[in-house]
Amino acid sequence: MKILFIGDIVGGPGMDTVRRHLPKLRRAYKPDVIIANGENAASGKGLTRDDHDELLFAGVDVITMGNHTWDKREIFDFIEGSDALIRPANFSSDAPGRGRVTIRKEAGALTVINLHGRTFMPPHEDPFAMADRMVEEAAEESPLIFVDFHAEATSEKIAMGWHLDGRVSAVVGTHTHVQTADDRILPGGTAYLTDAGMTGPYDGILGMRKEEVLYRFKTNMPVRFTVPDGRTQLGGFFVEADPKSGKAVRCERILINDDHPFNG
Amino acid sequence: MKILFIGDIVGGPGMDTVRRHLPKLRRAYKPDVIIANGENAASGKGLTRDDHDELLFAGVDVITMGNHTWDKREIFDFIEGSDALIRPANFSSDAPGRGRVTIRKEAGALTVINLHGRTFMPPHEDPFAMADRMVEEAAEESPLIFVDFHAEATSEKIAMGWHLDGRVSAVVGTHTHVQTADDRILPGGTAYLTDAGMTGPYDGILGMRKEEVLYRFKTNMPVRFTVPDGRTQLGGFFVEADPKSGKAVRCERILINDDHPFNG
Amino acid sequence: MKILFIGDIVGGPGMDTVRRHLPKLRRAYKPDVIIANGENAASGKGLTRDDHDELLFAGVDVITMGNHTWDKREIFDFIEGSDALIRPANFSSDAPGRGRVTIRKEAGALTVINLHGRTFMPPHEDPFAMADRMVEEAAEESPLIFVDFHAEATSEKIAMGWHLDGRVSAVVGTHTHVQTADDRILPGGTAYLTDAGMTGPYDGILGMRKEEVLYRFKTNMPVRFTVPDGRTQLGGFFVEADPKSGKAVRCERILINDDHPFNG
Amino acid sequence: MKILFIGDIVGGPGMDTVRRHLPKLRRAYKPDVIIANGENAASGKGLTRDDHDELLFAGVDVITMGNHTWDKREIFDFIEGSDALIRPANFSSDAPGRGRVTIRKEAGALTVINLHGRTFMPPHEDPFAMADRMVEEAAEESPLIFVDFHAEATSEKIAMGWHLDGRVSAVVGTHTHVQTADDRILPGGTAYLTDAGMTGPYDGILGMRKEEVLYRFKTNMPVRFTVPDGRTQLGGFFVEADPKSGKAVRCERILINDDHPFNG
Ligand SMILES: [Fe+2]
Ligand SMILES: [Fe+2]
Ligand SMILES: [Fe+2]
Ligand SMILES: [Fe+2]
Ligand SMILES: [Fe+2]
Ligand SMILES: [Fe+2]
Ligand SMILES: [Fe+2]
Ligand SMILES: [Fe+2]
Repeated sequence: MKILFIGDIVGGPGMDTVRRHLPKLRRAYKPDVIIANGENAASGKGLTRDDHDELLFAGVDVITMGNHTWDKREIFDFIEGSDALIRPANFSSDAPGRGRVTIRKEAGALTVINLHGRTFMPPHEDPFAMADRMVEEAAEESPLIFVDFHAEATSEKIAMGWHLDGRVSAVVGTHTHVQTADDRILPGGTAYLTDAGMTGPYDGILGMRKEEVLYRFKTNMPVRFTVPDGRTQLGGFFVEADPKSGKAVRCERILINDDHPFNG
Repeated sequence: MKILFIGDIVGGPGMDTVRRHLPKLRRAYKPDVIIANGENAASGKGLTRDDHDELLFAGVDVITMGNHTWDKREIFDFIEGSDALIRPANFSSDAPGRGRVTIRKEAGALTVINLHGRTFMPPHEDPFAMADRMVEEAAEESPLIFVDFHAEATSEKIAMGWHLDGRVSAVVGTHTHVQTADDRILPGGTAYLTDAGMTGPYDGILGMRKEEVLYRFKTNMPVRFTVPDGRTQLGGFFVEADPKSGKAVRCERILINDDHPFNG
Repeated sequence: MKILFIGDIVGGPGMDTVRRHLPKLRRAYKPDVIIANGENAASGKGLTRDDHDELLFAGVDVITMGNHTWDKREIFDFIEGSDALIRPANFSSDAPGRGRVTIRKEAGALTVINLHGRTFMPPHEDPFAMADRMVEEAAEESPLIFVDFHAEATSEKIAMGWHLDGRVSAVVGTHTHVQTADDRILPGGTAYLTDAGMTGPYDGILGMRKEEVLYRFKTNMPVRFTVPDGRTQLGGFFVEADPKSGKAVRCERILINDDHPFNG
Repeated sequence: MKILFIGDIVGGPGMDTVRRHLPKLRRAYKPDVIIANGENAASGKGLTRDDHDELLFAGVDVITMGNHTWDKREIFDFIEGSDALIRPANFSSDAPGRGRVTIRKEAGALTVINLHGRTFMPPHEDPFAMADRMVEEAAEESPLIFVDFHAEATSEKIAMGWHLDGRVSAVVGTHTHVQTADDRILPGGTAYLTDAGMTGPYDGILGMRKEEVLYRFKTNMPVRFTVPDGRTQLGGFFVEADPKSGKAVRCERILINDDHPFNG
């Protein structure tokens, strides 16, 4: 099974970039399933129903989230009703929505799991214990399992990779908005990438206007961050996994920007 | 001027890796100056005098540091006496050592500046204001300036890149121990990479034994971290800058491990 | 000189409590100067112009602030114009407003300084170095100096007390919203209290509705915090200092609530 | 039932202070049970077997702990064997020791529960959910329940007070080492104090030598903290609870130092 993952989509420029690049990514990778992290789709914070619908319309099968899940309050209205939207599984049991979903395609059934880190982040439930539980349940249906671990610290993300190595097809990190170069297949057969990077403005800071973010770093004064227009980038990860064993057989970082053009 | 930077060297395996790969990196890149981050050289924490001397013997011109600068107490005995060792410039004015050094080579004079982040880190002096001061002073001698920004948050590192764009030859991040894939030359002419990645064990977590780190994540119990033997990796960044203008004309990520073999 | 300090005033209930108790506090303590922390006056976050004016009308001479300084954007319109309002002195030099003010009364001139902590808080400028500078400048006018150190960690606050002992009349902490019981005059003559406690709702959590705060602790879900009606408390600190030497000669915690009624 | 609680005992000076004051505290309060937080007994960090034995010999019935539980490695040798020592109940299920103990006295059976905060602290298990579980189990034996909540943030501690109000006899905070003045019996009948304060050096910073702590705040340089000799203080909390209902009927802060002498 071929899986295409797209990292944190930031604002309108991010949405446009997905629409613009998806056709050629489809041609190049022929993905059976497309997954995208949508926590920043709405002006950099949260996901509206329109963003949700547009991503599905563009061909995304599953939308994952992160710390910005609840930033647009309207998500409380549609998260329970969507079959394609998940939020970190180790959020409170009181949180609406769910943390994993199984997608059935001709190539097989794939479970996507979303988890949230705790280092430099709020004390959500233990993501390692939750991963165990989620993977165990998912494995009853299919060995094909894809994990989006939304976390800040490289240590916690690599730890999750090793924790799940051999039990899932892929662990990919999101949240730092910068793609890492450490794509690999771990010894147990799990494709791993610390962070897929973001999809949206290329000349900002994590997708936000650089002048605003710099002002805050220099002054610690409050600033409203906005999503700038201009050049964009796309960050993603492609994984091919064996439907029988669930093991990854191939993985590839996807980074598209003016300095790293796509030659798929 | 050609500059080769090597990311956080972790323990004996990291030191061995530097020694093993430097000859071919020299052949491939013909660097005029070699810089290496040595904050983890001593068993993962700090730098001994022996590490310092061995790195210079291996051909390193300048050693930069980070949050682990003072972990081996003997550094207090030799940091003032070394012409090749710098620590973050925005450490306290009471801290021994200095934050920048100028190296003179046939190809020109290069100033290396070490800075420390503050997001998810102790409240050192403002790295942005300190960068301004350091760069202004360095620019009086030579436009060739190389900055190692030791920081955790991608936002703070990218902000520093934009802050110094056009004023220095390169800004490279260290500390997260995972190489990022966002190498680029910013519009003003500054080569940029969010993190160079680490040099040392390939199958650990940030260079430490994975079982130990995982145990801590799963239990929050105290664990002594050790540096494992086994396969290693090297993370680095190559920058070529015009000695007249100081602008970067070329930059290249260097990542060497079993999954990304070197074909220099 | 007799100085009455009132801790973080929270919302309308806090404003009412100040108005209700000030007359009897005046009778009991006969303060020459009244200082109040107003960072939470506006519905728990920030200070409006109305709050500012009402506090002055009620008899407050100086309003100090903290991390919530900029929460009500209208403060940008009046902070520069107010002679009675200060914000932490170690905020960025780009921040509007100032960090100290000198009040002249018959009993003498008193300088009030506001400082902000950095432990578990943003990396503002060094409060210890800023305290040195502020105190040195203030001491040229009068030995009577009062410091409101807005900080989270008990260690940082006590450290500031010792740092300034003998150089200022009083160091009182704010921000935790819970009064501490460690009032004392340090050996050098500085009255000290780790936190004056808050002024506002008595049956909430730091002045906010307890159900809302508890829900966030239990679920890590977003909640809008509101200021509840009901019983209130007042937290304050009284200091009498010798106008010649600036040394404190008497200090007294003031805590007024149903469990600790005032018998001034 | 009369319960005497003694806050974080710091080093030798703290141990001496307990021994010196306990006789008169016993006379004044006639406690049926004495509880003490011992996480800093051993030179400020951890608890040795000798400290443990000396505290029991001095009359302490139950020792509670906190973030410093494991600082002296020898505790791994005796924590399982001690009937009087507990550590935070929301530590990992892999941690040795246990989080509650029931003491049987003529006046009745009292369960002591130790919990750990998560704000500005590691992501231990949810203390609110763990409190529910612990209290439910304890309530089967006796309504007399005493909780030591070792936490940094005032908000989290007050939240725990309200969370358990009416279900336990007392919630007292530890860890900040500064006694708060907000002793009260909550409407449901739970005695509450945000922090009992520490027992040990009076002229240090949280029990450590002030010059060392100040140096670290001013420089962010590494310093070894030591426990100074000199004047000491004792911080504690006295609670009397009805053995039938478990409700608190009286509570009193105990703070003994040169500025607040004991007149029991
Ligand atoms: Fe995120
Ligand atoms: Fe994001
Ligand atoms: Fe580091
Ligand atoms: Fe490092
Ligand atoms: Fe505050
Ligand atoms: Fe406040
Ligand atoms: Fe503690
Ligand atoms: Fe403690």
